[in-house]
Amino acid sequence: MQDEQTGWTVTLNLPAPSLDDNRADADRLKAALSSAFNIDAVDIQLSLLKKLPARLREWDYQVRCLCFNDYGLLRLVGIKAPSDPLPFYGLAVDLGTTRVVFRLINLDTGEATAEQAFDNPQIEIGPDILERIHYADTDGGLDRLNRLIIDGFQANIAAICRSADIREQDIYFMAVAGNTSMVHLFMGLFPGGIIREPYIPVVNRPGLIPAASLGIDIHPDAGVFVFPNVGSYFGGDLISGILYSELHERDDIAMLVDVGTNAEVVLGNRDWLVVCAGAAGPALEGGVSRIGMTAGPGVIDQVWIDSENRRFDIHTIEDQPPRGICGSGMIDLVAQLFLAGLLDIRGRLVPDAHPERIYEFDGERRLVIVAAENSATGEALTLGQADFDSLIRSKAAMYTILETITQYVGVTFNDITRFYVAGTFGSFIRPRSAITIGMIPDLPEDTYQPLGNSSLGGAARLLQESAAMAAVQGIYQNITYLELNVNQEFMNRFSAAKFLPHTEADHFPSVRQSN
Amino acid sequence: MQDEQTGWTVTLNLPAPSLDDNRADADRLKAALSSAFNIDAVDIQLSLLKKLPARLREWDYQVRCLCFNDYGLLRLVGIKAPSDPLPFYGLAVDLGTTRVVFRLINLDTGEATAEQAFDNPQIEIGPDILERIHYADTDGGLDRLNRLIIDGFQANIAAICRSADIREQDIYFMAVAGNTSMVHLFMGLFPGGIIREPYIPVVNRPGLIPAASLGIDIHPDAGVFVFPNVGSYFGGDLISGILYSELHERDDIAMLVDVGTNAEVVLGNRDWLVVCAGAAGPALEGGVSRIGMTAGPGVIDQVWIDSENRRFDIHTIEDQPPRGICGSGMIDLVAQLFLAGLLDIRGRLVPDAHPERIYEFDGERRLVIVAAENSATGEALTLGQADFDSLIRSKAAMYTILETITQYVGVTFNDITRFYVAGTFGSFIRPRSAITIGMIPDLPEDTYQPLGNSSLGGAARLLQESAAMAAVQGIYQNITYLELNVNQEFMNRFSAAKFLPHTEADHFPSVRQSN
Repeated sequence: MQDEQTGWTVTLNLPAPSLDDNRADADRLKAALSSAFNIDAVDIQLSLLKKLPARLREWDYQVRCLCFNDYGLLRLVGIKAPSDPLPFYGLAVDLGTTRVVFRLINLDTGEATAEQAFDNPQIEIGPDILERIHYADTDGGLDRLNRLIIDGFQANIAAICRSADIREQDIYFMAVAGNTSMVHLFMGLFPGGIIREPYIPVVNRPGLIPAASLGIDIHPDAGVFVFPNVGSYFGGDLISGILYSELHERDDIAMLVDVGTNAEVVLGNRDWLVVCAGAAGPALEGGVSRIGMTAGPGVIDQVWIDSENRRFDIHTIEDQPPRGICGSGMIDLVAQLFLAGLLDIRGRLVPDAHPERIYEFDGERRLVIVAAENSATGEALTLGQADFDSLIRSKAAMYTILETITQYVGVTFNDITRFYVAGTFGSFIRPRSAITIGMIPDLPEDTYQPLGNSSLGGAARLLQESAAMAAVQGIYQNITYLELNVNQEFMNRFSAAKFLPHTEADHFPSVRQSN
Repeated sequence: MQDEQTGWTVTLNLPAPSLDDNRADADRLKAALSSAFNIDAVDIQLSLLKKLPARLREWDYQVRCLCFNDYGLLRLVGIKAPSDPLPFYGLAVDLGTTRVVFRLINLDTGEATAEQAFDNPQIEIGPDILERIHYADTDGGLDRLNRLIIDGFQANIAAICRSADIREQDIYFMAVAGNTSMVHLFMGLFPGGIIREPYIPVVNRPGLIPAASLGIDIHPDAGVFVFPNVGSYFGGDLISGILYSELHERDDIAMLVDVGTNAEVVLGNRDWLVVCAGAAGPALEGGVSRIGMTAGPGVIDQVWIDSENRRFDIHTIEDQPPRGICGSGMIDLVAQLFLAGLLDIRGRLVPDAHPERIYEFDGERRLVIVAAENSATGEALTLGQADFDSLIRSKAAMYTILETITQYVGVTFNDITRFYVAGTFGSFIRPRSAITIGMIPDLPEDTYQPLGNSSLGGAARLLQESAAMAAVQGIYQNITYLELNVNQEFMNRFSAAKFLPHTEADHFPSVRQSN
């Protein structure tokens, strides 16, 4: 029988011991694992050593193993009889500040068998990560935050196991991708250094941690891999996202943007990776205006305005009655308002252009998007000039960041052959609109590719493919972190980007044409 | 301030973080440890990561660290403030089948501060390791054996801590040297494979194990290093013994012999090490005859017989009334009987040579060593011919093993410049007597050097000197294990060695002269 390997699992057919080959059980197994995974150093924890002698003999020296390459040390995570019909299961985790998503993976086949999402229970302390970090500094605060997320994990592990009809003990391996702060709170590490100058995380490469030491009750031998972070502001979720995008395997240059409270940007190819992160403003996530919200049923995600009759057409998610607007909806709206002449080049509402919809209230110009009788709330959905100003600052910040990183590297936007947009935002955004408002470069639309939940996707890939760990290490080592200095040059660029689409119209030739 | 290093401890003066040096706490510490110990890969367990941020800042980035090189991976074991007056403590352990000895070491100074010895509590299952191994195969047997030794450790750790006026939590590091079987029972690993063909241990290099996972309650972050064994019959106690003897550092050839139930023999120098183990018979340990016993108060350890008047003179340990005889006493006795003509060349008692002491009972010749009125027991201390036969078989086996390993390597006894004798046996044996009976080669007496408890000594050295771990690895890798084949050639040698001192008298020129 040949050794059979899928991802991190391998079925070994060990030579039975004899007087001529009287290696210890552990050495016999280590040699076979070392050769199967091509890694010299193999570690077998005590709990597994205890099982080895009886199991190897009972199974006639055939054994299915689950391993993990923990930065160059191959760790044995679990063993099973080859005849055991139950696979090893793994759990990929996108550990978001707001939302946590689990994906259950059959590690023998690589197949995803269930998904489970839940609100991060730490929201009860504060929706914002900053509030939580401050809370961690209070007496018992860190413990409470840690308990909340671990309990949330445990409850939802139970739920996903029920839905897949397996037991918690069937899960041997977890891969967790999250931002630096969330990962610290998850491990019970004090996150205070992350937000205070000089911005120091406790750890960058946590590696494989025993699930039990994290207080997670799955298989007793299970390990939890936590994706590495590059300093305080470039988290493991982004490393995982790069892995998922395969940007790090490309010959030509690509860009990856993940928009949340921060905009995180990756520029690079197989040879180099430059990353940066900056505040692009929560407007893009839908967090500022009274009617702004994250994508969900009844949320406006697309807007059309007829340039002739200036009629508004909206689309809501799941076609529910409108109750708010998300970031991509906002971008669509601003683009359409601009093209229809309802917003001027500075992003100011033009009352004369549509007197029925644009009115003045309390000294501020406001726009009615949905009349009270058509909304889910029974109130008109309106946005004020301040909301538009906020979005314009955000889009300007985003464009400035993209310009800065590109110029730092010494390439132009035209060198970018693929532009990945990660996250929920990336799934809903229409590149045409984002180009129209000058948020992203004026590249052919098919350059843009939504990635969906790339953090979850990368974590899943790490569970599915043993080569993924070498890729994670390669990505980690290749990354150059560009500190964004908000200097005069940056501010000049930012000011120029606060116009629609830009003061330099030739940066957006396609917008000029269509306008 | 310069970094200060003693053994496994180092006091680091870390650069404080700044915007120009915003490495994670863990990376900052790892880099300094890596450079202090000259090892690339450094591991910091989660429990220590949790302490890092607050401690580093509280201590102004000065930190005293206890580390261990776990086969090429530098593990951080503990941290303390440089101003903490309490040292890190370590415990060196000789884990014997019969007796366990602890030595408490101040790891900051290397000083030994207390010792504690106790009978191996597994003796209640069986004094012999074989009985225990069989018992381990019964339902719950392994758990019970493991529980016994771990509980014994815990009770005696408490005792040694009381005697040194420290707490169990002050012990951060243990080094345990024992034979392969005992080490398996200590770790809760099934030892059955060790005694059944093809003689397979579960593990050869257990490395550093978290004390908590062994059920040992010392410092919660503490690690327990278990010395590696070379297969089933060459245990970590011998590796530790080699380390202690410094045989592995010699330019010229030395031999090390440890006599227990098995005789374990090492031959080598800095370039090569050949080891073997064979049954030399328990007679040498004092385990066979009714009055045989291990060294202790009232045990006869030296005997003189006046060749003229054939008067017996005995010495007992601590000069207590005689109650038995130990292995080294037996060797002395046989040598003196032979020199005085009371034993013939075949080791037979000669009644005519001393009719008052040698008599026949139940068809067997017996020798009175101590008359009833002079003994501690009120009964005469006597030995039968069978006891002498047994000792002679043992000494013949020992000599044959020494001859075999020497010839295997292609050297002669005369190439051996140093002959270490380990253990209690080694401390009491008189080389002249052992040579006289032909148990050890006829080398100048000052070639022989008793080592005392070399297993404990080596374990202590590992705690005291960080270079010792590289030595352990070097010894382990250099060792060639010679399987003793009891073939015709071996039997021929054995038969020749069953004479006093040997059939080939020219092997023992010094005995021939004095006889």
